Amino acid sequence: MGKNNEVTAQLKIDYPIIQAGMAGGITTPELVAAVSNAGGLGTLGAGYMNIEDLKRSLQDIKQQTTCSFGVNIFIPEYPDIVEEEIEKANHLLEPIRKDLHLDGKPQPELSRSLFDHQLEVVLKHQVPVCSFTFGVPSKEVIRDLKKEGIIVVGTATTVEEALINEERGMDMVVAQGSEAGGHRGTFLNTYDSAMIGTMSLIPQVVDHLRIPTIAAGGIMDSRGFKAAFALGAQGVQLGTAFVTCAESGAKPQHKEAILKTPEHDTIITRAFSGKPARGIANQFTNEMRSHEEDLPGYPLQNSLTKDIRKEAAKQNKPQYMSLWSGQSPRLSQSISAGELIEKIVEQASLEG
Amino acid sequence: MGKNNEVTAQLKIDYPIIQAGMAGGITTPELVAAVSNAGGLGTLGAGYMNIEDLKRSLQDIKQQTTCSFGVNIFIPEYPDIVEEEIEKANHLLEPIRKDLHLDGKPQPELSRSLFDHQLEVVLKHQVPVCSFTFGVPSKEVIRDLKKEGIIVVGTATTVEEALINEERGMDMVVAQGSEAGGHRGTFLNTYDSAMIGTMSLIPQVVDHLRIPTIAAGGIMDSRGFKAAFALGAQGVQLGTAFVTCAESGAKPQHKEAILKTPEHDTIITRAFSGKPARGIANQFTNEMRSHEEDLPGYPLQNSLTKDIRKEAAKQNKPQYMSLWSGQSPRLSQSISAGELIEKIVEQASLEG
Repeated sequence: MGKNNEVTAQLKIDYPIIQAGMAGGITTPELVAAVSNAGGLGTLGAGYMNIEDLKRSLQDIKQQTTCSFGVNIFIPEYPDIVEEEIEKANHLLEPIRKDLHLDGKPQPELSRSLFDHQLEVVLKHQVPVCSFTFGVPSKEVIRDLKKEGIIVVGTATTVEEALINEERGMDMVVAQGSEAGGHRGTFLNTYDSAMIGTMSLIPQVVDHLRIPTIAAGGIMDSRGFKAAFALGAQGVQLGTAFVTCAESGAKPQHKEAILKTPEHDTIITRAFSGKPARGIANQFTNEMRSHEEDLPGYPLQNSLTKDIRKEAAKQNKPQYMSLWSGQSPRLSQSISAGELIEKIVEQASLEG
Repeated sequence: MGKNNEVTAQLKIDYPIIQAGMAGGITTPELVAAVSNAGGLGTLGAGYMNIEDLKRSLQDIKQQTTCSFGVNIFIPEYPDIVEEEIEKANHLLEPIRKDLHLDGKPQPELSRSLFDHQLEVVLKHQVPVCSFTFGVPSKEVIRDLKKEGIIVVGTATTVEEALINEERGMDMVVAQGSEAGGHRGTFLNTYDSAMIGTMSLIPQVVDHLRIPTIAAGGIMDSRGFKAAFALGAQGVQLGTAFVTCAESGAKPQHKEAILKTPEHDTIITRAFSGKPARGIANQFTNEMRSHEEDLPGYPLQNSLTKDIRKEAAKQNKPQYMSLWSGQSPRLSQSISAGELIEKIVEQASLEG
């Protein structure tokens, strides 16, 4: 099922299974290479990565695989820095910082050149596939990438967003259902209105696109894989399913939390980054819940909580960590990425 | 696909397709009979029905079909009537009532015997299938129904709710994903936490149940039908897809709204009934939005908005009507219920 279709042909992979380009250290070169070596498309989540880390990661990946792989980067946003808002957010975070014995008061960071530099690296290193989240780059950027033979993949959470991706020249679009873990890729519609379940989103997107649709959101095993194809998708993207894999760089507490969480314990929060994302509810999300509307936008809030998340992992305090997870944590497994892909493909073809 | 499984055998139908027992006049005897005559399971939405209407509807259905069919009833709730809350809600509704030239101030209604009387009718008329929403009846009630050979079907929005249904003795459970239109069936978990997308919900429920799972939420055509089976469901329940059918008793404005609405224009609101439900956003839901938390509980709010909804339909003011819809309105069709079922079954078997 799904072998030798448009997606596998374009991405130069055996199976139409994409590992989501999750940012924040989850997508180690080991994970990316393991997925690609198993016949899927490993993706480096370079969203927050500086140029040196990105270059080093690309080298590491290329040392571990000769297969196709991807890099995911974020379309940048430059919100106004409102001192009052920052003060308020820092004030809210203070008790948590105290509990973690963190000194200083973080200042918001905005890098105005990161995206362009990341693109340069992608072009220079001839990364086979480049995917985007939080928007769509200009037609010129897409044209430049395609000129180098790089396959470009967009992200959409509504039909309208998918259509914009197609019009700008994307080769395929990941349609992200509301079940998905981590950040919402929404960029046109309001976040609330763009919480469309995968079962609804995929066929409606497929009906409007000429380019292939990749289904994302809630897919963890051969059942989700087959369901996505039944809905008209030509590929799947899995995030949470790869977080708990052996090669993933997710913190042990993060993996453990997913493996033991029931399906109704995730929430959408913008308290970690300023942008809505799905993760497992914990003390941090509970305490921030009533202030969700007041927090600074992405990526300002992200820079304010950075040291908290890092230090919480170090001190083994998962109550303050961003425990990204989709709505199917009961289907998560502690296996290798290769085994995961093998199981999906085997069971899907066995069951026909 | 899906023929001759446990669900079709128990429900005594040809195809494992259930028409949801939507309340409020949508499920006319004509619709119920048309679905059952086409090989699915028509269901009378008797949630709000008084005994005389219920009896007459059952007679009408039996005159139009000899096939199996179901009745859906609501597990009752008896919230305290807080005068202040009622006053506040009526005050909020006043401008709308004025615009509709409605006199008087509605008083909250609570019928403490309706559920028992509905059950008596179901038993006496030997309705083949009885389904429940908003909770699970006692073991005794379930035993009484089963003793008469009546198949009992529960509703769940989480794994835990599904397990309670099984423990109480249900023959099968409808697992309602967050895409679903109309009322959320949630009764144990909080409403927010129980918004699990169908792609995530079905396999996680299936993994925990011995009885069959019926998938609901976002399913509109053969693609959703096939996807549900891929996820492990043994049947599907469609609501919105039947609302726009010729035999449905939905108001013309309701049908029209679904047929022209994009996927991102539905919202969850408790402003119509006091219980969260998914419908198309309109002036009513927009104006009530910031007061959602303050409104009286179900069924109090339902009795306060009853004349508004009725009169709005009469005066052709859909901006005040409850336009229930799931998240796949772009897949809705203006056809007969028989055609809809035929198309689903034909296309699903053609595509294998």
